[in-house]
Amino acid sequence: MKKVKIVKIGGNIVDKPEALERFLKNFHKMEGPKILIHGGGAIASKLSKDLGIEVKMHNGRRITDFETLKLVTMVYAGLINKQIVAALQQNGCMAVGLSGADGNSVPATRRAANPIDWGFVGDVEPEKINVGFLKTLLEAGCTPVFCAITHDSNGSLLNTNADTMASSLARALSAKYSTSLVYCFEKDGVLADPDDDSSVIPYIDRESYKSLLADGRIVGGMIPKLDNAFAALEYGVEEVFIKHADNLLVQKETLLKL
Amino acid sequence: MKKVKIVKIGGNIVDKPEALERFLKNFHKMEGPKILIHGGGAIASKLSKDLGIEVKMHNGRRITDFETLKLVTMVYAGLINKQIVAALQQNGCMAVGLSGADGNSVPATRRAANPIDWGFVGDVEPEKINVGFLKTLLEAGCTPVFCAITHDSNGSLLNTNADTMASSLARALSAKYSTSLVYCFEKDGVLADPDDDSSVIPYIDRESYKSLLADGRIVGGMIPKLDNAFAALEYGVEEVFIKHADNLLVQKETLLKL
Repeated sequence: MKKVKIVKIGGNIVDKPEALERFLKNFHKMEGPKILIHGGGAIASKLSKDLGIEVKMHNGRRITDFETLKLVTMVYAGLINKQIVAALQQNGCMAVGLSGADGNSVPATRRAANPIDWGFVGDVEPEKINVGFLKTLLEAGCTPVFCAITHDSNGSLLNTNADTMASSLARALSAKYSTSLVYCFEKDGVLADPDDDSSVIPYIDRESYKSLLADGRIVGGMIPKLDNAFAALEYGVEEVFIKHADNLLVQKETLLKL
Repeated sequence: MKKVKIVKIGGNIVDKPEALERFLKNFHKMEGPKILIHGGGAIASKLSKDLGIEVKMHNGRRITDFETLKLVTMVYAGLINKQIVAALQQNGCMAVGLSGADGNSVPATRRAANPIDWGFVGDVEPEKINVGFLKTLLEAGCTPVFCAITHDSNGSLLNTNADTMASSLARALSAKYSTSLVYCFEKDGVLADPDDDSSVIPYIDRESYKSLLADGRIVGGMIPKLDNAFAALEYGVEEVFIKHADNLLVQKETLLKL
């Protein structure tokens, strides 16, 4: 079975031109078929403020009304996606920037408006991902670069969580490929002590994840990330890495396996 | 030789949601391999005003400084391109939205800053167009949908004229395909009398074009459009149609041949 690597970078890397440039050079050097998923970053919030579009939140999470959808489509699918593609092309990487609407690659379902109307927010159904289209691109030597914008197959674009988009793509591709999922962020891995950057846990399996959760050692935003990762492993993804964006080519990370 | 149709719509269609919807339904019905190129429309100018980005002009033409480049990348490659892709997907058309950076499909050269610095404006070199990438997409049953953003292969995006992008794509593809180029706009074709919409000239060849120019019957913005069209014919494009966006499937048009 051929291998494919799915790499996700967050908005905190997208926001720092030098960190992004370092990451893209390493990503280009990574051998074999690969896919990049990028988050949004602070540019959308800044533009939102500049345009006087009110940011509506519920329990700390953003509601995507129509004006916000147009804005994130411009910033994620337009500016950030094409700047990343142009930078990868400069390095000689045959990048192709995509939203989930392109090639019907990642269809999604608009989240039900009950009890909270999150607006134009999409949940990906991994079994509907157009693996054939992605296979065509990968076999032609292309590197798909996804922003986290999807569509409902009924004419509407949808805003999607980039972590979930990455794990859904990895799940779907694991039917045809031996799939590795790599989450890059600003720490060296999952930390045993959030205040000690050197306390990286090198290996977590299903059992040790349960213990870490029970001991209260995994907290905050790391929980949905790891839940996503283990869900991907349950559905056939080979291995998940959580690591610093600077260490893409270095074996310094947390490895997750079932 | 397989056929491919390259269709270009201008900003005046992009700006009118109902006209755009009608056009996209017809475009979907058009049989065989096809490519769409869309212009920009008034959204970029409105956003420019809302953001207080100064519009710099020279001889009635816009100068693309870095802020303007970011803005047109957001609007053309993000908002408009993805909205068109989502609408085509809704109709069942396997659209794939692209800029010229994606798949290195349309590399360009930044226009020399002498005598006027036009900023981040790119001139397409048709012989560098990645025909292999487009062939891969077309043979997979996909319909490429281009905005007129290109790149310089050195990391920078460039703003490009959509008419020229369409004729350059048609020229490049004519090496592998029997190629038709269709310019859609808001008139039924090239008019013998600009004030009489029914005065469509059904057929223009190289000789009659020269006479029409000499008689002063072709004026204004139609001249560069027709120059572009005849340049495409000189380089192997089979035929060029100039017609109303509503008449895509109707034989009511100006046909250009050598």
